[in-house]
Amino acid sequence: MKYVRYQYRDIASYGVLEGGTIRDIGGGLFGNRKETGKVRDLRDVKLLCPCEPSKVLAIGLNYRSHLGDRVAPDKPAVFVVPPSALLEPEGEIRIPPDAEDTHYEGELVAVIGTTTRDATPAEAEESIFGFTCGNDISERKWQKNDLQWWRAKGCDTFAPLGPCIETAYNWRGRGIKTRLNGTVVQQGRFAELLFDPPAIVSHISRYITLQPGDVVYTGTPGNTAALRHGDTVTVEIEGIGVLTNTVRNPGRRV
Amino acid sequence: MKYVRYQYRDIASYGVLEGGTIRDIGGGLFGNRKETGKVRDLRDVKLLCPCEPSKVLAIGLNYRSHLGDRVAPDKPAVFVVPPSALLEPEGEIRIPPDAEDTHYEGELVAVIGTTTRDATPAEAEESIFGFTCGNDISERKWQKNDLQWWRAKGCDTFAPLGPCIETAYNWRGRGIKTRLNGTVVQQGRFAELLFDPPAIVSHISRYITLQPGDVVYTGTPGNTAALRHGDTVTVEIEGIGVLTNTVRNPGRRV
Repeated sequence: MKYVRYQYRDIASYGVLEGGTIRDIGGGLFGNRKETGKVRDLRDVKLLCPCEPSKVLAIGLNYRSHLGDRVAPDKPAVFVVPPSALLEPEGEIRIPPDAEDTHYEGELVAVIGTTTRDATPAEAEESIFGFTCGNDISERKWQKNDLQWWRAKGCDTFAPLGPCIETAYNWRGRGIKTRLNGTVVQQGRFAELLFDPPAIVSHISRYITLQPGDVVYTGTPGNTAALRHGDTVTVEIEGIGVLTNTVRNPGRRV
Repeated sequence: MKYVRYQYRDIASYGVLEGGTIRDIGGGLFGNRKETGKVRDLRDVKLLCPCEPSKVLAIGLNYRSHLGDRVAPDKPAVFVVPPSALLEPEGEIRIPPDAEDTHYEGELVAVIGTTTRDATPAEAEESIFGFTCGNDISERKWQKNDLQWWRAKGCDTFAPLGPCIETAYNWRGRGIKTRLNGTVVQQGRFAELLFDPPAIVSHISRYITLQPGDVVYTGTPGNTAALRHGDTVTVEIEGIGVLTNTVRNPGRRV
């Protein structure tokens, strides 16, 4: 099942996506979901981020193809992103005026479905509601020079998410492609993940209680490059969908 | 004015604290606050964290007395803490079984009152609703060895906050004391802050939009030491109040 959150005439709601049609649901994404009978054409709505996380967590260095000359971590290399960084599908990535080297990072994102604490990997797998696409926008100068990655990864609009959550998703046989202005610039298979989603969620849950709607970006494969004003970047995950965003860079103003 | 959030017979509410009495208010902390007429005795309620942040931000290395042999940063050294780490006054700091060296860090905390983006320091000062006490609990082994500080600073219960927000607060002439089991173990004057609250909020707001209720921990003075099972740690800020928490450490279980 594919779930979306969408806006129709200023009202935000959840729905089930099937082809080009959204069947509206009430009761919240994690409560007693039931169809309200309202049906919308996908072309008539604005898609929002497909859930409303209280926390956004993310993993670095999780594909061998992205490590370069760095050593593979012995446990998931987690970091925290403020939810204010979330950006809806089709939304505009706004690069701050003093940024110099802001990269795309296409990623598989796990959406948590239940309150999760101290979970084994098997329990963690059960706690995952579904998967969506994410782009972990990263300013490399700040990532290298700041004490922590708060703005390197956490600026407003640096965490595009969507377009939908696929709940019946077996990531094991699947893969991801990031395209910049139509050209494939990253690709990876989820079999290559150093820590798979259940292992990541289990590890996080030893320290931090996860809540329904929380999201975990699982890391990016291969190489990345800088975004420029006017670029269109898409993250396509087989069996889920395509997350498309454009880039606005007003230029340096330090 | 001192604002609290409190629980009385399973109902959470905001109120104005005066002496030992809470005058209940409706309309939210940042909306059309008005007194409901209900009055509670402080002894009959459980105090909660005094606001409900969508984001918790914090600053490292912000007092010369805490730097040791580290160089003073040239801009506020920000990091992000998940709101799941928040802990109410009198709540129990739970040290994870595999933690080895978990320290207290008493801190002045700014509470944001308005949506704040790209603010000058003067605008940032206006955007601060008030101040409260915080304790930025820090696991030094993870702080040193992990790629990022997600669990070093972000475990459940690692961000005690409260007891109240003082809105008419001039931090300039004031100071902070942390006590461990009654003995003063940290003290500092806010005049010693390398970056003061308006400078910090202004800097953050260039990259991250702050919302009403968001909190910013402003860094800790002097030296810190490890917490042990059964400890009581208090953070007292002149003119605000005392934040008291106890420590539970079930012991190593790796």
